Amino acid sequence: MTLQEHIEQLNALDLRMSSLTYMEALFGWDSMTLASKKGLEQRGLVIGNISELHFTTLINDEIKATLDFLMDNKEMLDDITYAKANLYYKEFNRIAKIPKEEYGAYRSLITKSNHAWEEAREKDDFSIFAPFLKEVIGYLKKFIEYRGYEGHPYNTLLDDYEPGLSVEECDIFFSNLREKIVPLVQKISQCDPVDNSFTSLSYDVDKQAEYTDYIAEAICFDKEAGCIAESAHPFTMNLSRGDVRFTTKYHENDILSAVSSTIHETGHALYEQNINEEFGVSALTTGVSMGIHESQSRIYENNFGRSLSFWKKHYPKLQEMYPEQLGSIDVETFQKSMNTVKPSLIRIEADEVTYPLHIMVRYEMEKLIMSEDIDVMELPKLWNDKYQEYLGIRPTSDKDGILQDVHWSEGLIGYFPSYALGSAYAAQFEHYMRKDLDVDALLEEGQMEPILNWLSDKIHQFGSAKEPAQIIQNATGQAFDATYFTDYLKAKYSAIYNL
Amino acid sequence: MTLQEHIEQLNALDLRMSSLTYMEALFGWDSMTLASKKGLEQRGLVIGNISELHFTTLINDEIKATLDFLMDNKEMLDDITYAKANLYYKEFNRIAKIPKEEYGAYRSLITKSNHAWEEAREKDDFSIFAPFLKEVIGYLKKFIEYRGYEGHPYNTLLDDYEPGLSVEECDIFFSNLREKIVPLVQKISQCDPVDNSFTSLSYDVDKQAEYTDYIAEAICFDKEAGCIAESAHPFTMNLSRGDVRFTTKYHENDILSAVSSTIHETGHALYEQNINEEFGVSALTTGVSMGIHESQSRIYENNFGRSLSFWKKHYPKLQEMYPEQLGSIDVETFQKSMNTVKPSLIRIEADEVTYPLHIMVRYEMEKLIMSEDIDVMELPKLWNDKYQEYLGIRPTSDKDGILQDVHWSEGLIGYFPSYALGSAYAAQFEHYMRKDLDVDALLEEGQMEPILNWLSDKIHQFGSAKEPAQIIQNATGQAFDATYFTDYLKAKYSAIYNL
Repeated sequence: MTLQEHIEQLNALDLRMSSLTYMEALFGWDSMTLASKKGLEQRGLVIGNISELHFTTLINDEIKATLDFLMDNKEMLDDITYAKANLYYKEFNRIAKIPKEEYGAYRSLITKSNHAWEEAREKDDFSIFAPFLKEVIGYLKKFIEYRGYEGHPYNTLLDDYEPGLSVEECDIFFSNLREKIVPLVQKISQCDPVDNSFTSLSYDVDKQAEYTDYIAEAICFDKEAGCIAESAHPFTMNLSRGDVRFTTKYHENDILSAVSSTIHETGHALYEQNINEEFGVSALTTGVSMGIHESQSRIYENNFGRSLSFWKKHYPKLQEMYPEQLGSIDVETFQKSMNTVKPSLIRIEADEVTYPLHIMVRYEMEKLIMSEDIDVMELPKLWNDKYQEYLGIRPTSDKDGILQDVHWSEGLIGYFPSYALGSAYAAQFEHYMRKDLDVDALLEEGQMEPILNWLSDKIHQFGSAKEPAQIIQNATGQAFDATYFTDYLKAKYSAIYNL
Repeated sequence: MTLQEHIEQLNALDLRMSSLTYMEALFGWDSMTLASKKGLEQRGLVIGNISELHFTTLINDEIKATLDFLMDNKEMLDDITYAKANLYYKEFNRIAKIPKEEYGAYRSLITKSNHAWEEAREKDDFSIFAPFLKEVIGYLKKFIEYRGYEGHPYNTLLDDYEPGLSVEECDIFFSNLREKIVPLVQKISQCDPVDNSFTSLSYDVDKQAEYTDYIAEAICFDKEAGCIAESAHPFTMNLSRGDVRFTTKYHENDILSAVSSTIHETGHALYEQNINEEFGVSALTTGVSMGIHESQSRIYENNFGRSLSFWKKHYPKLQEMYPEQLGSIDVETFQKSMNTVKPSLIRIEADEVTYPLHIMVRYEMEKLIMSEDIDVMELPKLWNDKYQEYLGIRPTSDKDGILQDVHWSEGLIGYFPSYALGSAYAAQFEHYMRKDLDVDALLEEGQMEPILNWLSDKIHQFGSAKEPAQIIQNATGQAFDATYFTDYLKAKYSAIYNL
């Protein structure tokens, strides 16, 4: 086969694989929003079948020959072709060692596990979910053995979500954060507690939906290229660049939750909606890593969406919709209520400063799960102990504890650390964005296009065609440096709390 | 290969094919309810890819050998295995002659055509849809040439939806109906017109949704094995026996439309929800033909859902929900309003007596389209002329004319005749059900389970494991006889109109 023929084979593979990924995304969306429990068993069979197709499409001698040939001749490839070849080469080597029947069975398990988690959470009964979690962990450990690992077995999973990330780096990253954040939290704790009681008055949920729809559009979510729905745990799902969906969860007695989670998910969605259109149906048409993805959701949620400038523009409308609840609350008070630092139980409702501590709990649990043969029934207590230790509060129910996150039910172990990394990337991006744009003026005027354009130009457009380190270098002119994050937190909260 | 190995191969094929069908159903559901227009092109590529998979999974030498072997040895197969083998053997021979690239391109076209139809309908502009319709027709004609046909080329399409149906039979069937129905309609037209104005008062649509949800459950729709949504044109989609979904369209100024379409779609859904569970993920787990399917939707919509007995039970609740609109309307008047015979433009809102005339228009148009090289831009006029001729009224817009049905945009030509056939089957089923059950007493008491059980026992459970003729023979002890339908219409409307 000639080089050109190998390249054509790669492109055909990319379309077939991306079509299967599209289907899996659609199943994922549907499973989380609409699917019937009575149809679960059949759905599991069907999903197992797609996974098998996914496997056999990639893992065969013909594809192996093409990928090997292209990687051996990478100097002859253009950047885009190289990015694709590299991506499939890595994926090939990641899964070739897993027997396809086991992988199919695992995918089927995930659907059931996800429903079990939903039920367990609803009934606040971890034991419903436990046997599924145990099975999921069993599969992941077996897969790591098949795949091999360097250093800690958990490294293999970390690398899946954030290429290059390791337990050693995480240990340094988290201890660094702890060192800077704990004193900051302590200082803030000495301040008078903020009276946030107005945020938990009764807020009509239909109006919340109307407002969050408004806010998503205000920050440039393209409603003709996606939609918004509701689910137990907010998430974003990209079927294609032109069909990016996310969900929100409305709580009657919490106006901040739906607003901030909507801004967060919109950040994810904007990334997916603004990838280079020319990539087409391709594995390049999606965010490159969980960390970079989370940097986009967090920069909108925290850096912009909790700033005074942003709310000067958007608060009057909210106030108008809830005159009884917010009529006497000024924008400074509202913004301060969005930036209250207070240890709490639910990760997705945590403030920006204590948030990394929630991640640290999960990171340490996962590291343990992956290195020891722990009884899953012991996990809730361990979870609660760690919350007590790091956040000073103890969950009184598993619903508000270990059952709060969907991730483990979907086999997403190794994913959480990227959330904290995302916030750190976001701080670095914002720092450099401010060299090019008057961010505060734009936020205050509701001019979100220049901000989106900056992010699209520096980050979004590349999709998965550049690796995380390249993206950061390209956008900021330097390598990742976590001190931007700690500097940002210190400056922002010193101002809010007059430290 | 041994017989047992061929049977295992057949079962593996069945699971793979049914998984692809499941995915296509999910895409269909999603395309009609949620998908973004900007993602249409990518979606088209993905659907083309699934179709190609569908094609290559079935059409290959190995499968051909297995199907040929099993059909050559059918006397050695149990009924279920034979039914599966026969079904795939027919499908193999139906599509083996179509080049797979053309079929894939056709499936991609259908997605776009469907969106074009939606837009054309919204803008009341047939020219938006015309080029797509022309292309769809072109493909279907080419496919018929590939597949071959006996007698009229349209026969090949009729047989797809109702095995064994031909133009000759249809011509006899429709001329028979016309002979009996036209005089009936004329007689009714001599009666005083019914004052139905109360049905087009303003009916809050949220309450309509609440009521139609109630009615669907009242007639035994299992909400844990499916869901209800909204779309431009109501339809039912079965992903699996445990996940059967349907849609309704609410019109503020028409209380009857959503109610009767909900009962209709529930009839379809009940068929799918009550197929033998043991069939699993299989091509047997779906209704056997469009005609039998339509008999189940129509028996609920018309035979039960427009009867006085049924409304004696369910009208009080509706009256209670709309006291201003219905407070002074008694159940007899309400039931009569549901059975008003009056020629109208919209098929899905037509009464039971003129309904077959709507089908006749479509039947004659399709027969013509399939036999002549007609300019698609002439179709709207032809449509309008036929409405004038058979129903005595002329559409003033294409939206209320040729653009009203989704079918042609999805390539469903040959489908419509089964609607009329369905009503005729329904009358025959009801006639025999009344020998076993006191149907009126059950309806009046709201006891819908015995009715569902009769239908499940005689029809639903078999899924596609028996052919339509077998189902009818099995359920009624005789072959299909259209006079049950004309007798039923005559008796029912003589009573309502005191003829």
